Amino acid sequence: MKTTRTAQSHPFVELRPNLTHSDLAAIRTLIEETNLFSPTEIEIAAELVGEFLRHGTNSGYRFTVAESDGEVIGYACFGAIPCTLASYDLYWIAVHPSKQHGGIGKRLLENVERRIAEDGGTHVYVDTSGRDAYVPTRAFYERMGYIRAAVLPDFYAPGDAKVIYVKSL
Amino acid sequence: MKTTRTAQSHPFVELRPNLTHSDLAAIRTLIEETNLFSPTEIEIAAELVGEFLRHGTNSGYRFTVAESDGEVIGYACFGAIPCTLASYDLYWIAVHPSKQHGGIGKRLLENVERRIAEDGGTHVYVDTSGRDAYVPTRAFYERMGYIRAAVLPDFYAPGDAKVIYVKSL
Repeated sequence: MKTTRTAQSHPFVELRPNLTHSDLAAIRTLIEETNLFSPTEIEIAAELVGEFLRHGTNSGYRFTVAESDGEVIGYACFGAIPCTLASYDLYWIAVHPSKQHGGIGKRLLENVERRIAEDGGTHVYVDTSGRDAYVPTRAFYERMGYIRAAVLPDFYAPGDAKVIYVKSL
Repeated sequence: MKTTRTAQSHPFVELRPNLTHSDLAAIRTLIEETNLFSPTEIEIAAELVGEFLRHGTNSGYRFTVAESDGEVIGYACFGAIPCTLASYDLYWIAVHPSKQHGGIGKRLLENVERRIAEDGGTHVYVDTSGRDAYVPTRAFYERMGYIRAAVLPDFYAPGDAKVIYVKSL
């Protein structure tokens, strides 16, 4: 049983806090294959990667990449929210569909929270959608201790609310 | 009485939807003199002006400037929120302290709402602070028909909440 549990938790997944130029295409493919993001969202996610590759941490964005056997299987993008003392935004988190349910999202988010706390951050905010397709996403944040702070009906489109989650570190 | 009311409502204030390079310094001075914005906020406000001067409407930002006797006395900055169908953000609105209480803020905001509606926008969002210094700001939005959609405690700093207002057009 122990072996099975260990296998499920992907012991050979490594997290790294840097991006290389080859990650750009890998992250774009990863996001496309989740089938959760619109073409515009995919463009924006790729833009944030590009900003970091050009400007480093001066871009305002930071990344954690999950890699297994040399392949990018998940990533998270976060950053300090301008004009706030210690609030951070989790801009993006995604795990390849074939690698979900193995605890990689949890490890990515814990890594992000640790890095934010080390930076002196006290609050992590996440925006997500109120649509049914995002039930697993919202359940994930709730399991991770995030509190639903606000719901903005019809924010993304009619019937598609923005749900804002927050966690105090 | 009628004359007095006309004088108070600044009949010679003109609104224009364009920015010129000389507006950059004028807007920065205007924002500084309101005493409501931090140095970082002033930098960001100036950055948005710079983005528009470089990239026009491709910047994602649009402006309305209030001018009286060739002097910039107020302005608003707004734009479509990426990844939404018809939601807009009012990023900035400011009127010079010596020209407040004359209806210029109201005219600016009505102008912005009309331009958003002409663009097909259905929702206008405004973020503001929950601090006491912003009591008049929040009262202004409420008079203009904005509804308090969310309060995020300690968002900007301990004791400084973010208050999100929304108006459906």
